[in-house]
Order: sequence, then C-alpha cells, then structure tokens
Amino acid sequence: MHRFPLRVRYGDTDQMGFAYYANYLRWFEIGRAEMLRDLGMSYARVETELEVSLPVLEAACRYHRAARYDDLVVVETAVTSLRRASVRFAYRVVREDGELLAEGHTEHCFLGRDGRPTRIPAALEALMARAPRG
Amino acid sequence: MHRFPLRVRYGDTDQMGFAYYANYLRWFEIGRAEMLRDLGMSYARVETELEVSLPVLEAACRYHRAARYDDLVVVETAVTSLRRASVRFAYRVVREDGELLAEGHTEHCFLGRDGRPTRIPAALEALMARAPRG
Amino acid sequence: MHRFPLRVRYGDTDQMGFAYYANYLRWFEIGRAEMLRDLGMSYARVETELEVSLPVLEAACRYHRAARYDDLVVVETAVTSLRRASVRFAYRVVREDGELLAEGHTEHCFLGRDGRPTRIPAALEALMARAPRG
Amino acid sequence: MHRFPLRVRYGDTDQMGFAYYANYLRWFEIGRAEMLRDLGMSYARVETELEVSLPVLEAACRYHRAARYDDLVVVETAVTSLRRASVRFAYRVVREDGELLAEGHTEHCFLGRDGRPTRIPAALEALMARAPRG
Repeated sequence: MHRFPLRVRYGDTDQMGFAYYANYLRWFEIGRAEMLRDLGMSYARVETELEVSLPVLEAACRYHRAARYDDLVVVETAVTSLRRASVRFAYRVVREDGELLAEGHTEHCFLGRDGRPTRIPAALEALMARAPRG
Repeated sequence: MHRFPLRVRYGDTDQMGFAYYANYLRWFEIGRAEMLRDLGMSYARVETELEVSLPVLEAACRYHRAARYDDLVVVETAVTSLRRASVRFAYRVVREDGELLAEGHTEHCFLGRDGRPTRIPAALEALMARAPRG
Repeated sequence: MHRFPLRVRYGDTDQMGFAYYANYLRWFEIGRAEMLRDLGMSYARVETELEVSLPVLEAACRYHRAARYDDLVVVETAVTSLRRASVRFAYRVVREDGELLAEGHTEHCFLGRDGRPTRIPAALEALMARAPRG
Repeated sequence: MHRFPLRVRYGDTDQMGFAYYANYLRWFEIGRAEMLRDLGMSYARVETELEVSLPVLEAACRYHRAARYDDLVVVETAVTSLRRASVRFAYRVVREDGELLAEGHTEHCFLGRDGRPTRIPAALEALMARAPRG
C-alpha cells in the first residue's frame, strides 16, 4: 500500500484524549491525495485538467486503538476496485511502532464539470491502474 | 427516530460547494448527544455521573445527495442494537424538503474510568431501552 | 448585540477538556450569518443574489474563560464599522450563566464575482445599517 | 523564524475555494509545536514531564492572500515575548513561491496540573530562550 506519515495535532484530540473519530476520514483524504500525487497527477490537477471531481459515495472506518496527541501515524492507501463509474480506496492507519489503529474504505463516483456522473477519464484510469492494490 | 435540526455552515463546505464528508460524522455525534439529552441524561452526565465513555468502534456513512451551504438538515437518530458490551446507533440526514442526503451508523463500546471496557451501566441501559428503534 | 445560542460539541473539545481555540472563529462565522438572516437576508443570498462575498481580512479573539463540552453559549454579534470597502463585526461568547468566555472581531472586504474588491452593494449597506452597533 | 511546511487539504477549503479562515489558527498550533520539538522538547512532553499546559489567551491573524487547495505553505514561527507568566508567538504563513499569505500571533499563559496559572518552569524558559526571535 502507499504510505504517507501524519502527526496527530492538538486540534485533532477530544476530551477523551484521543483523536476525534471524524478526523480519520480527513486522514483518508490525505492518503488518497498523496497516493495520486506519487502516481503522477495530483488530485488538484485531476479537477482542473481532467475536469472531473470524485465525490464520496460511501465511507467507513473501524477503530481498533486510539490515536493520541503527537502520535506519528502512517496512512496506507490502496485502490481495491476500479470501475467505469466508481473507484474504491482502502486505508489503514498504523502507528509508528506498527500498531494498527484503524482501517476503512471510501467509494467515489466521477462527476463532470456539469455536475453529472460521468465515466472515468482514460488518463485517470491509466493512473489508478498503477496504484497499489492493497 | 429522534430528530434534531442543524444548519450547514460555511466552514463545513469545501471547494466542491458541498459539506465536506467528514462533517457527517460530527452531525451523527450531535444526533446521538441530543437523543440522549431528550431521553433524560446528557452524554456529559453519562461521562461524569455514570463514569463511562462511549468510544466509537465503527462508523459508516452512505452519501446520497450533497448538503450545501446554509441548508437546514435534520439528523435522525435511533438505537438499532443494545448489548451488554456495545450499542449501535443509526442515523439519517434529511434536508428540510424531505430529501434524504445521507444515512449511516456508529457502534460504541463502554469504557470505565480506568480506560478498560466495561458492561453498560444499568442506568444507561434503562435510558437507551427507551430510545427510538429506527 | 444580536444573540444566537450554540452548544459546545465533543468534536470541539481538545485533550485539555476545553473547546479548541480555532472553533471560536467558526462560532463568529455562525454569529454573523445568523445576524444577517435576522436582518432579512441570509449570507447565502448575499453571495447568490447580490453577487458579493465577504472574505476575512483580519480576525482576533481574546479568551477569558474556557468553554467546556456541552456548555450552552451565546454568540453576540454587532457591526462596529461599516465602510464602502470593508465591514467590521464584534463578537462576544457568553456562557448560559452570563460568564464572558471570549470576545473578538473580524474585518471583511467585499469581493465581486470576478474575484476583485468592490464597493458594498446598496442593498447590503442598507441591511447592515440596521444591525446592532455593539 | 522556524519554518515548517504544510499542505492545504480539501477539508480545509470552503466554497469560496480558499482555505477557511479558522484553519490558520490550527496551522499556528502546528508551527509552535514543531518549533518546540526542534528546540528539543515536544509540547507533548511539556504537558507530561513539565506538567504545564499553555492555553491561549489571545489569537489574531491578518489575511493577505488566500491559500488554495493543494498549496504548499510554510508556517514560520518565532517567540516575540517571554515573561514569567506568559509567552507570545508570532507567525507568518508563506506560499511556496514566497508570497506572504497571512501573519498573526498567539499569547499563552502557563497552567499547572491543578488548573491554576503558574510561572514558566525553568526548563521551558531555557528552551524558549533559544527560540528564533522573529
């Protein structure tokens, strides 16, 4: 899987002393953005040059152990399904010492400039075909 | 289901013009907190008086239609499973005009003051037994 | 001043047990949005009908006492300066029991559809002239 | 000044297409945390080993130019005032190409384990005395 390191910030924590659960979805976003960048095209360029956006259809996360303030974690990302009308990413959040903190997935469709669902552009399909498969 | 209204704020939107997908988990938190309050005991009192917290084991959301800036939405919350060691809430996010925007669930365990899993306190079980069942 | 009640949510807290300091700027946004709505035109309509946006030039907050989880606070908002090219809002965040938690201000310019600074539209000026003056 | 790079994420943007204004305070937090780490003691250790926390008394930011999605920015941090009962940090947010996006400051007091204001611990004073002065 593609790996990208992240630091848990004070603003991420809640009064339980853990990273608030919604932040993992933000970390998933960072994971897939950095995977795309490393494959050769940033998501910013996907939106501006290929003129598609990838809104989220579904997101899920299982929380195994709490991330705490200042933990260094790695977001691992892979593409687990790639179809004409949708793509699915899988994620793992792993602490510096190798402990698995959380795992999840997101599913996305492709939206054209007109705000309507469209097929995946060929250039994006070629890019994602080279992604780690998890 | 229990119903609680929310307004989509500017800070909730992203450059697609939609509410960012992680915010729905925050709205789920608001939904279950307000359901508990209406059942007779706020989550704040659950933590301080019953001395248990309810960390999230799992969260999931399916996004049907985008929430937009200044939309008034209702978070609907119900208890769909109540066991000694865990509880599951279901949610629906519905726009003012009745359109279903998203639905999801969260599953929680019970953590004692010592940070270890514990059984649901009797007072909390009695409270949740009176919750809408979805 | 215009008054709008808010509940401090779990996701707003940090591991100190207080509302994280950046959230107050979000509360200021809610305060000015609700003041505009009560004056007769939501900020959403300002953007779509008057075709101006109000990006922030400056924001400041002094924190007197911590807001805690589940506190009910009131955001008080007023217009303290209204000029052709900018407007300044003042805010106070007051706890249910009257304790002043924080106070601050934001200053905004007016941006046209073309992304360039513009004069305040007459309809918006008339609206803001009726705002509480703090 | 101490320099730390940051990427603007999708969740940071709003429907204007800019980074939402409250996020800069989060970036300031990251700037001061990373400055402390580079000086030799992480803020996490300040809280656990020196047993003081540094709640914010005041925060302010002037926004010069908008940060946009996927911009790489540098947070520059310095200590501009160090006293027995408080410390002030100054910040600049600079885009990759050198453009100044925002500048601001935060002021903090020192809080002991008992939740009461205290003097700065000697070890922290020595640490901060070695900080860039802006």
